[in-house]
Amino acid sequence: MTDIIEIKKKLPTQIAVLGGGSWATAIIKILSENNVKIKWWLRRKTDVDFIKKYNHNPSYLTDAPLNPRKVKAYHKMNDALNGVEYIILAVPAAFVPDALKNLNRRHFQDKRVVSAIKGMIPNENLLVTDWIEKEFGVPQTNLCVIAGPCHAEEVALEKQSYLTIASPSKACAEDFASLLNCRYLQAHAILDLYGVEYCAVIKNIIALACGITHGLGYGDNFQAVMVSNAMQEIHRFLDAVYPETKRDLHSSGYLGDLLVTAYSQFSRNRTFGNMIGRGYSVKSAQMEMNMVAEGYYAVKSIHQINERYGVEMPIIKAVYNILYEKAAPTSEIGILKDYLK
Amino acid sequence: MTDIIEIKKKLPTQIAVLGGGSWATAIIKILSENNVKIKWWLRRKTDVDFIKKYNHNPSYLTDAPLNPRKVKAYHKMNDALNGVEYIILAVPAAFVPDALKNLNRRHFQDKRVVSAIKGMIPNENLLVTDWIEKEFGVPQTNLCVIAGPCHAEEVALEKQSYLTIASPSKACAEDFASLLNCRYLQAHAILDLYGVEYCAVIKNIIALACGITHGLGYGDNFQAVMVSNAMQEIHRFLDAVYPETKRDLHSSGYLGDLLVTAYSQFSRNRTFGNMIGRGYSVKSAQMEMNMVAEGYYAVKSIHQINERYGVEMPIIKAVYNILYEKAAPTSEIGILKDYLK
Repeated sequence: MTDIIEIKKKLPTQIAVLGGGSWATAIIKILSENNVKIKWWLRRKTDVDFIKKYNHNPSYLTDAPLNPRKVKAYHKMNDALNGVEYIILAVPAAFVPDALKNLNRRHFQDKRVVSAIKGMIPNENLLVTDWIEKEFGVPQTNLCVIAGPCHAEEVALEKQSYLTIASPSKACAEDFASLLNCRYLQAHAILDLYGVEYCAVIKNIIALACGITHGLGYGDNFQAVMVSNAMQEIHRFLDAVYPETKRDLHSSGYLGDLLVTAYSQFSRNRTFGNMIGRGYSVKSAQMEMNMVAEGYYAVKSIHQINERYGVEMPIIKAVYNILYEKAAPTSEIGILKDYLK
Repeated sequence: MTDIIEIKKKLPTQIAVLGGGSWATAIIKILSENNVKIKWWLRRKTDVDFIKKYNHNPSYLTDAPLNPRKVKAYHKMNDALNGVEYIILAVPAAFVPDALKNLNRRHFQDKRVVSAIKGMIPNENLLVTDWIEKEFGVPQTNLCVIAGPCHAEEVALEKQSYLTIASPSKACAEDFASLLNCRYLQAHAILDLYGVEYCAVIKNIIALACGITHGLGYGDNFQAVMVSNAMQEIHRFLDAVYPETKRDLHSSGYLGDLLVTAYSQFSRNRTFGNMIGRGYSVKSAQMEMNMVAEGYYAVKSIHQINERYGVEMPIIKAVYNILYEKAAPTSEIGILKDYLK
């Protein structure tokens, strides 16, 4: 019996990773430090071919070598999902419904689904895990999210990093966390799936706000106050939408995640906001960036969800008005400036 | 009667500011936007003469002009204190006992004392306000502290900033806050004097820790986790030393103050820590910097105070061991790295 357990332990865990961006690549790098087989689905056939030939991502974290004995790239999603225990979702939230449109409940049966996405499904205003549960009938106990204060670029450099794995199932969170632990990464498990996921969504909006105010010429003093107020705003929102007495927002899965994004010069949300603050229209900023700022979609979802709850969220409101109501950044942030303290 | 009140309102408030550093200069700049007379004591006679002649500080925020109708520099502390309603302390904590050694209770009688110092009186391990109360019999209701996420340099540039004024007396905090409000600054009053003051002291130690880890090559992911853990550490410490149910550590006077210091490239505590992380001895780092890093003294006081309480403070412990117990930064931060999550 002991022998069987030992043998089972030694079998590599099979994991599908869906998405070809920098965060997907970083997660693959981390996972492949452990005993796993990764089946990596990428949208573009050319990327799949490139990875098969050169063993690194052609577009993101290009300097991170991937172990071909552990990582195999796929162009057909069906093939990537075959026989895996975990499915990791790492495509932008807005593209999730389209990317998964040919899948059905069977593909997800008895599999754990990990969302590495920090955004919401647009129009439906659902968290990614909620949407997966609704569309594919995955039970909550098989769902988890990866949050963390974690730039993919620093993972590539093997700088010491930390991740928070949240799931209503302790076993699910702990099992997945154990697959991530390695010499430069520590993962820990918590139970607050929705709190962590909402916080990860909102932090992108706050990073966008930091970009806008920076673009308008506000400084570090203002940003420190805005981030403090953002934590209060997140606190109020979570207390209304998903109250949980044991939640400690000072944990790195909440505050840390916000900090690493809000203070990053590399965050695409911050960069997008900065362009808005400097006078670009939403359309021209999007065209110039040619990439998705999750916060752009997220602020619409959070704003609409909050219509039901009426939580005081002046930062969210300011960003929403600027991006969707054609409000001038100077006047919206001027109103916000007087509110903050 | 109304006329008398009106006349009284129009009389300028007389304020003494003790200390000639950048923060003292910034506070003077802010206050002189309002109806005040400032009597500014500086240690060096040459600085006093310079300010009288050129109306700006020769050494700090040299680009900030000071209004000579409102600001008068003094070399004799007695003269500066004569007839004022408020005394603002803005000398490094370690020098406070020496700077005030010729004063007695009479100098403080019926005056409000505002500490703009973010450090503790060494050896005695007292907060500055506690020491003022003990030495000069100033009642708590006449004591307040200025905290806030506020780089002096951004005040000089008139970038929008915020301050938190804390005093057990609402009137004291609100009166002083009202003297600070101006077109680029908003001050608000809270009652948690000791919580705010301890937090301001500890944040300098955290900035020092951020410097050490940066000097050792740790990145932004690590810093975000360390700052989150620091907030938990501050939370535990304040709950043990000075519990207060209404305290909201997400307010800008706590979290904001920590952020602006921990993420500042200009913080002297961070710079000092960075040198330690890069391999300077404590002595050579101090000699090279030629200025006081408050966190160096603060960590000893907090460590000693915590011997009574036994709060789990791994970041404080690591910094203490590195600065006072000759522990190697690599191994101390290695221990800390495994503890954090």
